[in-house]
Amino acid sequence: MNKNYKVVGIGNAIVDVLAKCSDEFLISKGIEKGIMQLIDTPRAAEIYNSMDAGVEISGGSAANTISGIGTVGIKTAFVGKVKDDQLGRIFAHDIRAQGVAFNTPMVSSDSDDETGRSMILVSPDGERSMNTYLGVANQLNVTDIDPDLMADTDWLYLEGYLFDRPDSQAAFIRAVELCNGAGGQSSLSLSDPFCVERHREAFQDLIANHINMLFCNEHELLSMYGGKSLNEAIEVGAQYVDILVCTAGAEGAYIASGGETIHVSANPVNVVDATGAGDLFAAGFLAGLSQNKDLEVCGKMGCVAAAEVISSMGARPKNNLQDLFDINKL
Amino acid sequence: MNKNYKVVGIGNAIVDVLAKCSDEFLISKGIEKGIMQLIDTPRAAEIYNSMDAGVEISGGSAANTISGIGTVGIKTAFVGKVKDDQLGRIFAHDIRAQGVAFNTPMVSSDSDDETGRSMILVSPDGERSMNTYLGVANQLNVTDIDPDLMADTDWLYLEGYLFDRPDSQAAFIRAVELCNGAGGQSSLSLSDPFCVERHREAFQDLIANHINMLFCNEHELLSMYGGKSLNEAIEVGAQYVDILVCTAGAEGAYIASGGETIHVSANPVNVVDATGAGDLFAAGFLAGLSQNKDLEVCGKMGCVAAAEVISSMGARPKNNLQDLFDINKL
Repeated sequence: MNKNYKVVGIGNAIVDVLAKCSDEFLISKGIEKGIMQLIDTPRAAEIYNSMDAGVEISGGSAANTISGIGTVGIKTAFVGKVKDDQLGRIFAHDIRAQGVAFNTPMVSSDSDDETGRSMILVSPDGERSMNTYLGVANQLNVTDIDPDLMADTDWLYLEGYLFDRPDSQAAFIRAVELCNGAGGQSSLSLSDPFCVERHREAFQDLIANHINMLFCNEHELLSMYGGKSLNEAIEVGAQYVDILVCTAGAEGAYIASGGETIHVSANPVNVVDATGAGDLFAAGFLAGLSQNKDLEVCGKMGCVAAAEVISSMGARPKNNLQDLFDINKL
Repeated sequence: MNKNYKVVGIGNAIVDVLAKCSDEFLISKGIEKGIMQLIDTPRAAEIYNSMDAGVEISGGSAANTISGIGTVGIKTAFVGKVKDDQLGRIFAHDIRAQGVAFNTPMVSSDSDDETGRSMILVSPDGERSMNTYLGVANQLNVTDIDPDLMADTDWLYLEGYLFDRPDSQAAFIRAVELCNGAGGQSSLSLSDPFCVERHREAFQDLIANHINMLFCNEHELLSMYGGKSLNEAIEVGAQYVDILVCTAGAEGAYIASGGETIHVSANPVNVVDATGAGDLFAAGFLAGLSQNKDLEVCGKMGCVAAAEVISSMGARPKNNLQDLFDINKL
């Protein structure tokens, strides 16, 4: 049966506020480098009031992935919650402009909460530290899961961060059941090692029972399944899914499937801002799968897309990904 | 008498929405390349709905100039009107984060209009075409002109675009009278050749009677004073002010004062986005004046700041201008 969408993503709809900062600034504000921290309104004000002038770019982990796939001309949709406010309208414009169907009902402009945002502080080494105020992204729930859409996609792509709220976790499970029940497959991104720590058992259950393909990085995988080495963790994780995709920073990525593990090398690049590296790796990989490439080529496409996004500020690609795949003969 | 501020700017408070576009897109939408066009709400929606995903960065011509001077650590203030909405709070945060005092009362969140924005479409040649919805920037009026602030600055810096509204034009004149009356000096930027066409006579009166230093580019100067050549226009224009500063794109800039004209060469640079070139030239020049540099050094500082801003997207510098002045031994 031919489905209308190749990939449908579900995640937090977020606008990024990016600014450079010094290592001293991170220390003085008690911000842990390289991870995502959920913050409340007073903490958001505290950080914003002392941080440098920013640049606003639509973000959100799964949204970055889906819009990356969308720019390749592959049919995709995104499900996530924004408010009918200025940042919400910016988010909706941007993801649609990148070719993605986006029809999740907006939260009314009367709501006290605003569209979610993440203050992303980029230190001189190119590493990013994310301080996320979820706002109305919090309000995603099962009523936002359109059964027709879930049944009409080859792949579902789920953002692990949604496990931080029971309502969105329930939406998540419902989406997977609907997609898989209609013959589709489901993939999950683990998002962040601390997100894994917060929800390890729930994730393990979901993966074992419903997930066909798992995206993660080395830290998330080790946090999830333990093991003395990355190889060991890959071996354990690969038992639960058809395809395990584990990125490893400058080492590239490992793809484990059918008892074999393939290694692909990262593309050399000057890291300006690591924001979105994992998101865009997944975009390249899923674009490859949608174009029926073999797993090694999918991995290389992931590396090309990741290299593109980390060579400039922000988590959305500046250049057309298909052009980059063509240049690299992928 | 020692004044508290070196430069106080008055202009439209605008958030830029920057996106790349093709030449075909400009033609299909009837957008004239390289200039600023004022647009209404329906036209703003038409352009936004069809343009690519954008990046939001605080902008506004005089605001770019003042924040550029602010990053050098020179005491500055900005006067301009935003609404108490998300984009207004972003504008206020960014200009303050760059060291600028910004205390113009915000328009209440109940207002039907929103904070102004400019959709800036950057074509492959790096040229920018600006489509500006002024929103509440329109509402700047004489009550926003704080007499104490105007009397407490060495230089006033006025954005020509404000002449597009009678209320802001009146605010302008009041500011000049207060500043000059307290022993300060006033400078004006002509902003745009079409802005000059719209208000030629009013500008000529203002310049002849109140303006000590005029910033313009070759097109604006020729539109203002005519003449067969740039040299002739410089000669005419220089009669009306103490210092005439005329930028000329890749040719650099000309500074006419006291019967002499100095030429400074532009710094070689790969033009990514021409947005803000004139604004940042003025920033570098005024920073030099504030540091008591001679006019040739001021001109070179203008060229360094302009080169910095056109080498990346957006109209605010990405690197510290003082560092760049130091590297260039200015």
